[in-house]
Amino acid sequence: MNVVDLIERKRNGEELAASELHDLVAAYVRDDVPDYQAAAFLMAVWFRGLSPAETSALTDAMVASGETLDVAARLGRSVVDKHSTGGVGDKTTIAIGPVVAACGVPFGKISGRGLGHTGGTLDKLESIPGFRVELTTEEFIGQVREIGLAVVSQSAELVPADRKLYALRDVTATIDEDSLIAASIMAKKIAGGASALVLDVKVGEGAFMRTQEHARRLGEAMRALGKGAGLSVVCLLTDMEQPLGRAVGNALEVLEARDVLADAGPADFRELVLTAASELLALSDLHIDRAEARRRTEQALADGSALGAYERWIRSQGGDPDPARLPRAPVVHEVLAPRSGHVRNLHGRAVAAAAMALGAGRARKEEGVDHAVGIVCHRKRGDEVREGEPLAEVHARDEAAAELAEQGFLVACEIGDEPPEPRPLVLDVLR
Amino acid sequence: MNVVDLIERKRNGEELAASELHDLVAAYVRDDVPDYQAAAFLMAVWFRGLSPAETSALTDAMVASGETLDVAARLGRSVVDKHSTGGVGDKTTIAIGPVVAACGVPFGKISGRGLGHTGGTLDKLESIPGFRVELTTEEFIGQVREIGLAVVSQSAELVPADRKLYALRDVTATIDEDSLIAASIMAKKIAGGASALVLDVKVGEGAFMRTQEHARRLGEAMRALGKGAGLSVVCLLTDMEQPLGRAVGNALEVLEARDVLADAGPADFRELVLTAASELLALSDLHIDRAEARRRTEQALADGSALGAYERWIRSQGGDPDPARLPRAPVVHEVLAPRSGHVRNLHGRAVAAAAMALGAGRARKEEGVDHAVGIVCHRKRGDEVREGEPLAEVHARDEAAAELAEQGFLVACEIGDEPPEPRPLVLDVLR
Repeated sequence: MNVVDLIERKRNGEELAASELHDLVAAYVRDDVPDYQAAAFLMAVWFRGLSPAETSALTDAMVASGETLDVAARLGRSVVDKHSTGGVGDKTTIAIGPVVAACGVPFGKISGRGLGHTGGTLDKLESIPGFRVELTTEEFIGQVREIGLAVVSQSAELVPADRKLYALRDVTATIDEDSLIAASIMAKKIAGGASALVLDVKVGEGAFMRTQEHARRLGEAMRALGKGAGLSVVCLLTDMEQPLGRAVGNALEVLEARDVLADAGPADFRELVLTAASELLALSDLHIDRAEARRRTEQALADGSALGAYERWIRSQGGDPDPARLPRAPVVHEVLAPRSGHVRNLHGRAVAAAAMALGAGRARKEEGVDHAVGIVCHRKRGDEVREGEPLAEVHARDEAAAELAEQGFLVACEIGDEPPEPRPLVLDVLR
Repeated sequence: MNVVDLIERKRNGEELAASELHDLVAAYVRDDVPDYQAAAFLMAVWFRGLSPAETSALTDAMVASGETLDVAARLGRSVVDKHSTGGVGDKTTIAIGPVVAACGVPFGKISGRGLGHTGGTLDKLESIPGFRVELTTEEFIGQVREIGLAVVSQSAELVPADRKLYALRDVTATIDEDSLIAASIMAKKIAGGASALVLDVKVGEGAFMRTQEHARRLGEAMRALGKGAGLSVVCLLTDMEQPLGRAVGNALEVLEARDVLADAGPADFRELVLTAASELLALSDLHIDRAEARRRTEQALADGSALGAYERWIRSQGGDPDPARLPRAPVVHEVLAPRSGHVRNLHGRAVAAAAMALGAGRARKEEGVDHAVGIVCHRKRGDEVREGEPLAEVHARDEAAAELAEQGFLVACEIGDEPPEPRPLVLDVLR
């Protein structure tokens, strides 16, 4: 393999053979290809993209770089998983897992940490006192078998090529390229061993994908990669112009996920949980249609079985499911409406920035997060509000931070005379 | 300085500030920016190019990365230099230096080694027994003062940023980008301290620039960089569809350069030497016009003063100027014309490939070269030949190599019924 030649051919827009991509990834993981050549290659890919065949070969090569979990084979039945491309206030996994498990379908997820303006599920779960995100492979499979539900962090043995490539992409401005994103996500899902997957591709200014067309392209690419590996994938395109639900911030989001499981919670978030969970049941070995799946998921919320599954899950991973035990910020400020009218926009990225300023997220991998802080939005897009009524609650570590976040929130929340055009949460479903 | 941000902005086609490029280059030379970030940046530049202002800033930053020679200031008069972008059989420096020195104008050149299909002046000079290409700065300046002529290798202290960046470009498929080429060449020329420069930009299939338009763009970019640094630059665009002169190979080329200095040698090579030397005299502190300059350069060849300057120069750098002392290959084969007709093309790159196969060049930096071997072309483009007459001489280390090179040469030499359209050697002069 002549690495300079591979870089040059990709740079010139040529399609590389699957065997060439396999050799390149394998040599990079072995440290036989240095970071600087991988970086030049990634930047060439940023400009030229990868063909469907190349993306598939890259995904295969990444899966082949480490161990693969055979959860479904070990359980002797299908296991489902869910992945989101990242949005503001996206705590969906924490609610979907228990709903699906309560309906009798095993849910096993290997998750990541948040970086940038969107939080990560692991950070949210770690706001629960005692919760352990690091389980061994045997603990993970055992827990899925016994209580039907586990969410863990990615081990070093799973898709090491992605860990190494992602870290390099992060410092060379080559994160935001669709074929690399699709291969990175799907390699982890394929190696994770699930049989069916719901992908939630977020669309809008609070998401990585700004347009529905772009989100659809990425979703189709990931569905094709899944299909190639024998994994059933349904892709939801969902709105991320504004935060999902009301809570943005780790412990606040856990609380909101638990509210949905207790058959309450904000309507938009609850609807997404029910939609995604129904799709998973319909893909599972229950062999039921989506209408029946929907009925069963609503039932799981109504009869308390989903909340019970949540509590068993949290306890099984060492956590205390009592919501009163979640950390609370010492300062809570109400943000009051500066005028009467309708909320025309609640800019997701700006709300995220305000939450980041409170310490809810991390700008760099090595930073910690403050689990207690965040924002709860009382009014969302389309809601009417009168001057002086509360728009939101800011949960902060001190007064100064609260005031900054309050100002930030007021920038994020646009109030006008007329209500905006309604916009659905689920924009499309790719089956 | 946020390096990821600089890479991302360049990647997105934004123009970077001069101070940002300065900081980036300085940090890279200090090893504060790792190779992988520099590699991603270079690949982004390969796709986006650099604006004239960015190219100028990069050149300045590279000059500032090391020491600069003030040859002209130390001598109290202007010193001239010449640079070629590289072609097949290009031994011009070896003849121009003595002509210019014989006319009373100091010539000081810091030169490079050949890589790929074009030879380097240092490799050619090292075929002269005893010749030393490594002089200290003081030896270099002293020799230019005393005998008016020195050609040395680049020291580690001169433009270290270019050494480091060039080595990285070489292994990341980012060599062939015009603004990087222009900055690399001109940084070395500016740091080398000459007052005036003739640039010979080669055009054609045997050169890096395939079209005249491309060569003109690069030439204008380099002229602008020189002007910005107070360096007078005249740029010749010269034909490189076929080898320059007749000899390709280190000792063979030294012999041919000496032939021109002895008022003989091939007409095309002699013409290029006279043209470039006249331009240099006209840029020098002699304050003469080009017609007078041309007269003096022809005189220097005719009266033996150029050959005398050559002999003083070679001796001063430890070499033996006697042409009989140059190494000779043990096997010399004549290549005979397979048919009668006119030479329609003598493909430069193919002749170079045949010479490379003999061992005359190096494909990788760490390889050595065989100084004795090479090819002498008896017939060139436009020449008539009869079947069985010699087309060329192959100088080889053994019979097997000679036969391979002979086959290679026959591929390079196209013979047809009609003579080709004539084509000038000097395509244009940018003053």
